[in-house]
Amino acid sequence: MTVKHSELLVDTRGRGAGLYEITSRIAEQISSHAIENGLANVFLRHTSCSLLIQENADPTAAYDLIRWFARLAPEDDPEYTHTLEGADDMPAHLRAAVTRTSEQIPVINGVLGMGTWQGLYLFEHRRRGALRKLWITLVF
Amino acid sequence: MTVKHSELLVDTRGRGAGLYEITSRIAEQISSHAIENGLANVFLRHTSCSLLIQENADPTAAYDLIRWFARLAPEDDPEYTHTLEGADDMPAHLRAAVTRTSEQIPVINGVLGMGTWQGLYLFEHRRRGALRKLWITLVF
Amino acid sequence: MTVKHSELLVDTRGRGAGLYEITSRIAEQISSHAIENGLANVFLRHTSCSLLIQENADPTAAYDLIRWFARLAPEDDPEYTHTLEGADDMPAHLRAAVTRTSEQIPVINGVLGMGTWQGLYLFEHRRRGALRKLWITLVF
Repeated sequence: MTVKHSELLVDTRGRGAGLYEITSRIAEQISSHAIENGLANVFLRHTSCSLLIQENADPTAAYDLIRWFARLAPEDDPEYTHTLEGADDMPAHLRAAVTRTSEQIPVINGVLGMGTWQGLYLFEHRRRGALRKLWITLVF
Repeated sequence: MTVKHSELLVDTRGRGAGLYEITSRIAEQISSHAIENGLANVFLRHTSCSLLIQENADPTAAYDLIRWFARLAPEDDPEYTHTLEGADDMPAHLRAAVTRTSEQIPVINGVLGMGTWQGLYLFEHRRRGALRKLWITLVF
Repeated sequence: MTVKHSELLVDTRGRGAGLYEITSRIAEQISSHAIENGLANVFLRHTSCSLLIQENADPTAAYDLIRWFARLAPEDDPEYTHTLEGADDMPAHLRAAVTRTSEQIPVINGVLGMGTWQGLYLFEHRRRGALRKLWITLVF
């Protein structure tokens, strides 16, 4: 067995906050290394965006999910003291805290072992977006 | 080192929504491969149920946990637009979003390195349940 | 490749509930094994505290985060039936359920592949704290 790291960049500055599917970009790394069986780790190097595996079929599910997180950790909460980085920064940390910094996905017979309706998403929580950096680590 | 995948099926159609302990089913795979030291990845191939490591001792903890998630993401929220798959589908995605799609557990001296009071659960969020498919990936 | 386990103890009995940064303690294990490239798994053997990767720069972010979780799963909820282990036990399980039991971090060129502003924290949810036991598993 061996381990291979590669960097993945996701630029969310154009569209801003929301869900960005990155499943195919992980799949590309698996193909390029011709991996048969192993484990893929996707690690996000930020605390104001997060990772999430969610339904990739019906856009209304993504729409409702984004709005639910906006209500769970709203921007206008008078309890926040961490406000210097903008009104959307503290809710971004909170929404990231209850989702994921990394995901681990099995690689089986050369493909990601995800279900038919699963997609891996970068969940951008900042309004303006940013250039997001991730590590893909393949153990195979 | 090597990697071994095996499929795990959990049928929740009889009892429906709730917590299903699967710790012993992961332990069986570790025994059958005679693994001494390594890492076990459990990956769920669905977005309307999830994984959770929780207390396995007092059933009141499980009872309160299920009811708390039902209040956190309730069925009757008028804000949902994703309603075609049933009133319990969108809350299922939300409850899955804040729990886990995969868990990683160390295997130490032939056993899962979990604490005395920890159990690994499949958290079924759909009322009717379904035949749930998981991958167990062992790296050892 | 090989796998190495080591135990990590974090004593939270002095200060009680709150965030305890443990990033440097994982880094020490990586140095002591002289690991170049691999994956670090940190696994917490408890259900009333949890793991979280969060901002390590501004203390107001940690302050707001702790208070937000206290409101998300408050101590005085009359719906709880699991009350025998103290008023802070059920909220501890709930706050743990929506954060993490384990984290996986890539090790790249001898160092943890985390972002500049990321820290790995043990999030103690019990008022009195406890002696917390974790496993660090290194695959390299």
